[in-house]
Amino acid sequence: MAVIDTTGWTTSQWIKYHSEHDPEESFQLLSALVSSQKTAPEDPVWISLVSEDDLLHQWKILQSKSDKFQLPLYGVPIAVKDNIDVKGLPTTGACPSFKYSPQSDATIVSLLRDQGAIVIGKTNMDQFATGLVGTRSPYGKPTSAFSDKHVSGGSSSGSAVVVAKGIVPISLGTDTAGSGRVPAHINNLIGLKPTKGVFSCHGIVPACKSLDCPSIFSLTLSDAQLAFNIMAQPDLAQDEYSRPMPSNPKKYFSSALKIAIPQDIPWFGDSENKKIYTAAVESASKLGAEVVALDFSPLLDLAKCLYEGPWVSERWESMKDFYSTNPDNKDLDPTVTSIIKGGEKFDAATTFRFEYKRNAILQKVKASFSDFDALLVPTAPLNPTLEEVEKEPVLVNSRQGVWTNFVNLADMSALAVPAGFRSDGLPCGVTFLSAKFNDYALLDLANRFFKVHYHEGVRRLGATNAENGIGDELLPLPKPNLDDCVKLAVVGAHLKGFPLHWQLIKCNATYLASPKTAKSYRLYALPLKGGPIAKPGLRRVDADIGEQIQLEVYAIPKEHFGTFISLVPEPLGIGSVELESGEWVKSFICEEIGYKAKGTEDITSFGGWKNYQDSLKKHAESQKKPF
Amino acid sequence: MAVIDTTGWTTSQWIKYHSEHDPEESFQLLSALVSSQKTAPEDPVWISLVSEDDLLHQWKILQSKSDKFQLPLYGVPIAVKDNIDVKGLPTTGACPSFKYSPQSDATIVSLLRDQGAIVIGKTNMDQFATGLVGTRSPYGKPTSAFSDKHVSGGSSSGSAVVVAKGIVPISLGTDTAGSGRVPAHINNLIGLKPTKGVFSCHGIVPACKSLDCPSIFSLTLSDAQLAFNIMAQPDLAQDEYSRPMPSNPKKYFSSALKIAIPQDIPWFGDSENKKIYTAAVESASKLGAEVVALDFSPLLDLAKCLYEGPWVSERWESMKDFYSTNPDNKDLDPTVTSIIKGGEKFDAATTFRFEYKRNAILQKVKASFSDFDALLVPTAPLNPTLEEVEKEPVLVNSRQGVWTNFVNLADMSALAVPAGFRSDGLPCGVTFLSAKFNDYALLDLANRFFKVHYHEGVRRLGATNAENGIGDELLPLPKPNLDDCVKLAVVGAHLKGFPLHWQLIKCNATYLASPKTAKSYRLYALPLKGGPIAKPGLRRVDADIGEQIQLEVYAIPKEHFGTFISLVPEPLGIGSVELESGEWVKSFICEEIGYKAKGTEDITSFGGWKNYQDSLKKHAESQKKPF
Repeated sequence: MAVIDTTGWTTSQWIKYHSEHDPEESFQLLSALVSSQKTAPEDPVWISLVSEDDLLHQWKILQSKSDKFQLPLYGVPIAVKDNIDVKGLPTTGACPSFKYSPQSDATIVSLLRDQGAIVIGKTNMDQFATGLVGTRSPYGKPTSAFSDKHVSGGSSSGSAVVVAKGIVPISLGTDTAGSGRVPAHINNLIGLKPTKGVFSCHGIVPACKSLDCPSIFSLTLSDAQLAFNIMAQPDLAQDEYSRPMPSNPKKYFSSALKIAIPQDIPWFGDSENKKIYTAAVESASKLGAEVVALDFSPLLDLAKCLYEGPWVSERWESMKDFYSTNPDNKDLDPTVTSIIKGGEKFDAATTFRFEYKRNAILQKVKASFSDFDALLVPTAPLNPTLEEVEKEPVLVNSRQGVWTNFVNLADMSALAVPAGFRSDGLPCGVTFLSAKFNDYALLDLANRFFKVHYHEGVRRLGATNAENGIGDELLPLPKPNLDDCVKLAVVGAHLKGFPLHWQLIKCNATYLASPKTAKSYRLYALPLKGGPIAKPGLRRVDADIGEQIQLEVYAIPKEHFGTFISLVPEPLGIGSVELESGEWVKSFICEEIGYKAKGTEDITSFGGWKNYQDSLKKHAESQKKPF
Repeated sequence: MAVIDTTGWTTSQWIKYHSEHDPEESFQLLSALVSSQKTAPEDPVWISLVSEDDLLHQWKILQSKSDKFQLPLYGVPIAVKDNIDVKGLPTTGACPSFKYSPQSDATIVSLLRDQGAIVIGKTNMDQFATGLVGTRSPYGKPTSAFSDKHVSGGSSSGSAVVVAKGIVPISLGTDTAGSGRVPAHINNLIGLKPTKGVFSCHGIVPACKSLDCPSIFSLTLSDAQLAFNIMAQPDLAQDEYSRPMPSNPKKYFSSALKIAIPQDIPWFGDSENKKIYTAAVESASKLGAEVVALDFSPLLDLAKCLYEGPWVSERWESMKDFYSTNPDNKDLDPTVTSIIKGGEKFDAATTFRFEYKRNAILQKVKASFSDFDALLVPTAPLNPTLEEVEKEPVLVNSRQGVWTNFVNLADMSALAVPAGFRSDGLPCGVTFLSAKFNDYALLDLANRFFKVHYHEGVRRLGATNAENGIGDELLPLPKPNLDDCVKLAVVGAHLKGFPLHWQLIKCNATYLASPKTAKSYRLYALPLKGGPIAKPGLRRVDADIGEQIQLEVYAIPKEHFGTFISLVPEPLGIGSVELESGEWVKSFICEEIGYKAKGTEDITSFGGWKNYQDSLKKHAESQKKPF
């Protein structure tokens, strides 16, 4: 069997390979991939790799599924941070004496395996997910996928590097203070930090339970979205902070979006990342956003609370039983130990005082940021070297968290994305932040951002030689919950490409289908009244004089329908229309006085508004006099 | 000047008196009221009363207002619990050595004074609002307004008693664990515990800052609602937990509401309150609610957290500086001191552990209670005697909190209401609970409950001889925010009294006006199709053949409009109608095919659907054959 280089494959490349080869060949490819990897100390990115037996076991389970070839992750290898339980591999939290053998998968691992993913190993991390550097582990120090002199970023260090090197297309991290974003910046990756509670934390070693979020690393936006679609499942009985996504989450920001950026950014001596961030802000403006520089000090005050305040006591609460066993010192990272043990000293009164402070800050944040759709910040100010971190392990770490530490305390969604390369060849990322549950809208925003920012049409994936069409084209979103939507047929100016289509976007509508009406309608071009936008009127008639008219049907979330209908002027209204299928859905209707007004034209014969408008255009062009 | 007995006056009686007398007489009446009262130790309900000077000062400020006679509380005397700042009177928290002179009013006091209220004094309370009995104060022990052998309930003891005795119609309390509800039960009062954050806590001595709610005592529902309307104002800059009411809060539960009651209720030997509670549940059924007995153990587990868990450390955080001054022991209630000092012992890790526990319980609560509109519970199980409390100060107190302690931890709205009298003449109350921001809906529910429960048509107010028509008729609610509403004209079956009016109620609609259309409409009775409900169709025509048609206009919150329009069948739809004023509002319109169908009747000459239906009824009656 020829050796196949899978480096930099996205999920779709893996799926494509599997669809074109028999299962035995697919298994051999996965097996070769695992065999090519080494665990720490040889390669500090992996703490453990699956055995041939375990791999075969996973494969057999997958093969036993009747729907296996339809699974969106069929045979796609993934890596899992070593504080997340995977049945069959030990969980260490990057501490040998903490090691245990989980009896079941963490909820998110189980969801991914159910959809066909194959776990190939567990990755190194800052011990107990305490750090943003990636060097705080007795299993060794993963370095940036771009430089062995630079840290990988952490705490999800190994998970970032194995994706950046193109070994797996998707890996799992966790993110309490920035652990799923800082390594994305350093390794040229997508780092998706979901809204707190949207991914279950069941089966994950807690850091700060009230703030922890599992996170996704991927090479492309579409792979991040694919994993998000699978992992965003409520787990209320097993995770006290689990929250379901709203049934119709925001899918995109309007084209006239407002983005806030910080007035002042401390770069701590760096000038390269500053350039790239500035260019990213420019790209955001170019995509049509109104970009406003704001005083971010309330958010920076919040960031400080995270390590100065009592939240570190959550780490102590989670780990104190372990420390009481007097684990071997060689298994413990001294910086991590001193941070976590520092959580013992806080009392309840202080905890509440900081909780009041957090709430007071959040009142200010609401006051100054609620007008904005998103925030655009550097992911982290620096790309530190191993040497710099060794010299100042706490200072460098805290500087790296300036733009990440406040995010979970403020209950925001976050998406870290690559923004380009510095003159020294290292990558630099930026992060879009938004309100809770705007995870999908952030993916769409990043997609629009890429199209402007990578204007040459290609984007390098991680540290591989693979490139991606700039779109990082997003997958179709999960269908909205139609019980919570109004199905609306549009017939004229709201059709895709027509001047009022934005009203559907504004109301978070989802396109469903393009059916025709039953054969009992006539269509009229209404005379222009006041406004410049031409509109048709639909009239239901007896079948013997009616025709079928082309429609587009959208699902509009019920809660936005009031906004939509406010925008509908007389003589139009929203009634019901019979589709060719016999189904009735809500639709534009027209008062008789509208289509009987002087100047109205019967355009039924065109079969729809688009055909009619196309014919008008053609006619106008043919009338143009040649120069 | 004749002496006028103001005992048991509600706000409307005070307003009426003032409107019929000159300001000098009004002032004299208030002055006489204040003079008739004594402070502790003579009367333990008052810690301080305003001086003649202060009263005159308040009166002069009121007289200087140009709109004074329009103010809803013009010259209405109120009492304020002594942990709430009133400029001009000391704040003690029922601890002499804690006393300070506030430089400004608490936000809620200022809001009430702005609307004409006159503060006449500060009331006694369980020290630092720590207790549900009312006996924990060096200023003496207020007793039940019904018995000098029974405690008043607390911690808002004095505020409850001065309303129950009819001295003032409204008083302010605070409610962290039940302090605004338990005394309402013991003194036959309305006790409104709003949604956390809806009333500002600025200028109030904190107990548990994350849970504290100012509260209202009143004799009638309408007075509670009046005070609520005034006090429900966001104060985001001064209260870190302040939250604005939603712009269109729920105003009523549907007539087919579901109420949960506890499966098991510990009565601790009492049998009298049990009878009254059982009768109240029966009344709830009679008003059309589906009443379901549920396992309340998740909520009872939550209740236990409040005193067993670290929330008591909030009291310590608020008071530790004061205790560090070594205040005189005679100023301190020993039970309160030991409870608050108990808050010193909790550490941050424990605090977080209990916060996890609270969240896990709330996940269960959501799972079992989210189908219910409201919960109906006893306000408190007992009407304890002074002797009983003296014997077992902590045990009795904790029993009284069974049904109140969990409410703020679960972020609920609460309304305690009188439910009748026991065979020993003591009163007993019940409490309706609901989700946050359902405060208005609870007032409406209590109003409906009273109509069924007090079926003889009268309800004794507090411990006075005054009685109230059972309705406790509610005031018109504040107008909804029309920016967040769709104004909809209804023309047929949605009119008040017609069969589809419930659809407006379901969508939380507010009646605005009954205008006519412009003179360019015709109205048709549509043939019955399938359904049994007769409907008209409105047709816009040229003015020369049109008439004016009677409408009713409602404001429907935008977020509910999608639900509303789903209920509108063809040939009807929602378009726009021109009113006689020239304004255009959304309205029912009708497809031409509807009013041109066979069997349609032109009923324009009736001027509206109601007139037409009335004429049909008359005709039907005249056709009835006599027996």
